[in-house]
Parts: sequence; C-alpha cells; structure tokens
Amino acid sequence: MKLIAFDADDTLWVNEPNFVGVKEKFCELLAHYVDQQTLSSQLYDAEVRNLQVFGYGAKSFMLSMIETAIELTDGAITGREIQQIIDTSRRLLDYPIDVLDGIPEVLDVFSKHFELMVLTKGDLFDQESKLARSGLGHYFKHIEIVSEKNEQSYQRVLTRYNVAPADFIMIGNSLKSDILPVVHIGGRAIYIPSDTTWVHEHVADEQLVGKSFTTLASARELLTLLGVKEIA
Amino acid sequence: MKLIAFDADDTLWVNEPNFVGVKEKFCELLAHYVDQQTLSSQLYDAEVRNLQVFGYGAKSFMLSMIETAIELTDGAITGREIQQIIDTSRRLLDYPIDVLDGIPEVLDVFSKHFELMVLTKGDLFDQESKLARSGLGHYFKHIEIVSEKNEQSYQRVLTRYNVAPADFIMIGNSLKSDILPVVHIGGRAIYIPSDTTWVHEHVADEQLVGKSFTTLASARELLTLLGVKEIA
Repeated sequence: MKLIAFDADDTLWVNEPNFVGVKEKFCELLAHYVDQQTLSSQLYDAEVRNLQVFGYGAKSFMLSMIETAIELTDGAITGREIQQIIDTSRRLLDYPIDVLDGIPEVLDVFSKHFELMVLTKGDLFDQESKLARSGLGHYFKHIEIVSEKNEQSYQRVLTRYNVAPADFIMIGNSLKSDILPVVHIGGRAIYIPSDTTWVHEHVADEQLVGKSFTTLASARELLTLLGVKEIA
Repeated sequence: MKLIAFDADDTLWVNEPNFVGVKEKFCELLAHYVDQQTLSSQLYDAEVRNLQVFGYGAKSFMLSMIETAIELTDGAITGREIQQIIDTSRRLLDYPIDVLDGIPEVLDVFSKHFELMVLTKGDLFDQESKLARSGLGHYFKHIEIVSEKNEQSYQRVLTRYNVAPADFIMIGNSLKSDILPVVHIGGRAIYIPSDTTWVHEHVADEQLVGKSFTTLASARELLTLLGVKEIA
C-alpha cells in the first residue's frame, strides 16, 4: 500500500495570503514611521534570523514583527501600537480555514485507496489547530508535524512507518520543502504551485536541473494522475 | 519489551527555574509601573488564556509577557522596554541545558534494557532544540512531542507504537500531565517531583485518591526501582 503525504499550508488550505494580509496591515500601521520597502526587507531579515531560534509559524512571525517595529522606530513605537500589531496578527492563529478547491473530493477518493498522511512543518499547536478547523482530519491516518522538511526528516518519517521511498508520494506547493528533498531520497513528488509562496521557500532554477517530479495545475488533477478517477 | 517514556522539562533537565528567573526580571523591569503581585497574577491569567491560541512554550510566554506589560501600563510601556522583555526572555530559547542529577547514568543503563522515548508537550521547535542541546538524544529511540498530554494523546502514542498500557512506563514531574492520565489508561507512572512546578500543572489532592503510582526522590532511584542496578 502506498503512503501519500500532503503538505498542509497552501496545499490543503489557503495560508500564505493570510500572512501577506497581516504584513500589509503591519506596513500601514507603521507608515508614519518608515517606508514600506524598508519595513518589508527588514521584516524578512528578522524572520529568517529568528527561524533558527523560534522556528516556523505564526508566533515566530508575531515576535519578528514586534522586533522589527521596535528596531526600525528606534524604540519610539508605543505599547499601544505594538498591541495593534499583536491584535492584527493574532488572527493568524484562529482564522477560518479556507480549504483549497478540489481537496475534499480528492481526499474522499484517495482515503479509500491509500494511506494518507498530513506531513507539514511549523508550529505543532498551530498546525494541529488548523487541521482541526479544516474539518479534513478524518481523511488522514497519520499526522506528522516536523520542525524542518529536509531529506533527514523525510527519511525519519519513512523509517518510522516502515515505508520504502518508492512507495511514498509527497504532494505539496513548496519545491524546497515538499519536492526536492523527496526526489533526493527516491520518493515521488507532485508539485501543485500556489499563487503566493513565501520567498524563503523559493529555489533557484539550477537546483531543479535533472530532477523528476510532476507539476499539476490543481489538486483535482491528482485523481487523473494517480488513476483512481474511474473507481471513484 | 517495555517502553519507558521520560517527560523532558524538569524531568531530564532544569526548565521551570529559567521561566521563574525571567518572570523576576520582567517584574523588575516593570516595577516603576506596577506592583509585583498584580503583575504576576495578570501574567498568569494571560498565559492560561493564551494557551488555547498559542499553546505551551517559550514563544507563547514571551507574547503573554508583552501583552500583560501593555495591558497593565495601559499602553504607556515604550518600545524600548518591550525590547528588553524580548531580550530577557529570548534566552529561554537557547539557554545551556542543565541535565538533572543521575539522568545520564539512568539513561545509560536503561537504554541497554528498554526502548526509551522522550514524551513531552510544548513547542516542537523549542523541545527539539533543548533535546539536541542536552546531548541526551542518542539514548532515545523515539521522540514524541505533543501539544497536550492527556489520556487521548497517551492512547494515540501507544497505538502508534503498538504497545499495551501494561508495557508502558511514564516518568515525569507533573502529576497532571505525566502521572494521572497514564494511570487512567492503565499504564505505570513514576513521579519524580521537581522543586519548582508551574502552578498550571498543580492538581488537587482529591484527584489523587485511589490512584496508584510510585514517587521517587530522584532519578537515580529508578535504577533500584526497575531492578536493573545489579546488571549495570
């Protein structure tokens, strides 16, 4: 039996656009202190720097925004304004989940033929909460939330479930986290790009040279690709 | 083969005293705004309220401190002071790990006779980082980081590893998270109290009535209790 793993954010449901929305509000809020360009680039620097201490997720992002705001205003930002940043970004932790088009249909069919897993990186609490809010939880036999998605972490998951790479399919929207490491360990990867991808997840074209994976325009095409459409 | 799981914070290494230290610094920092008593009780309220949105861990705690500071100063706290709160609490994420007395000896013996697991709740990234910094990682065959330790989550772990409750031993310092739920599902629980326990982990005496578990004064006593001292 094949194990099919789905990435969560922007593969099962809309995520990055929520972060983009919060970033826009953040820029508006600080517009009288600093221009948007400087703010964006400084925030990105803080996010990447803090990844090593905070990890991924909404709480890290909130702390990075607060730090950036203090830094760029040279401490002049008020407590009240920081509270506004917290209030604006807090909704990243409990926004209603917008499941992507075709996903329920695909999961409904796939769950009858394959073992399904959610395999996502990020904040444990946050990701579990999103899965619960999505109403998709019952389709998945396994949930794996890891702190980083790289060859080692995929290998660890496959070892834990005693699955050979050849029997493993990973579906996701990030070339860096969902596709390349899986291809490198001999698994099959299916790439479904999302409209908005965090720049940290981008990979250079040359990293893709010689790599085999399938790109689909939408989740719905998975039914045809994996040959279970007729059965459905 | 028995599966023995260890809680991490204040079971394998010192943790809560670091939080207490940061809370003290936080009170000092805000001493000119508000008295310590009010601050402590308000911070605790914020922590518990935020548990449901943020989960456990250092990042949640940082955000709760920032919120409390803004709330209690009615927004008058400056960006510079908030940065000081962040700087003070940041060390919760990278402090050097102080492994508790007897733990390496116990793990060294146990790892030869049992399957060992770290089973902890909290922030995924933070807990993995502490385990790595502790240098104890190689003793453990399994690492499970869950968002909450209750009967359901213990049951899930045992099902995943195909272990009967009767073959499961949990060792920890929290009656609420490590002992009672394990006793309730029919596992064996060994309680090693720590000097400092977060008030949220306290349980009322009446909850302990009729519950069987072993209390030890220190990790070292595990060797005698589980009868492998002579073999060592």
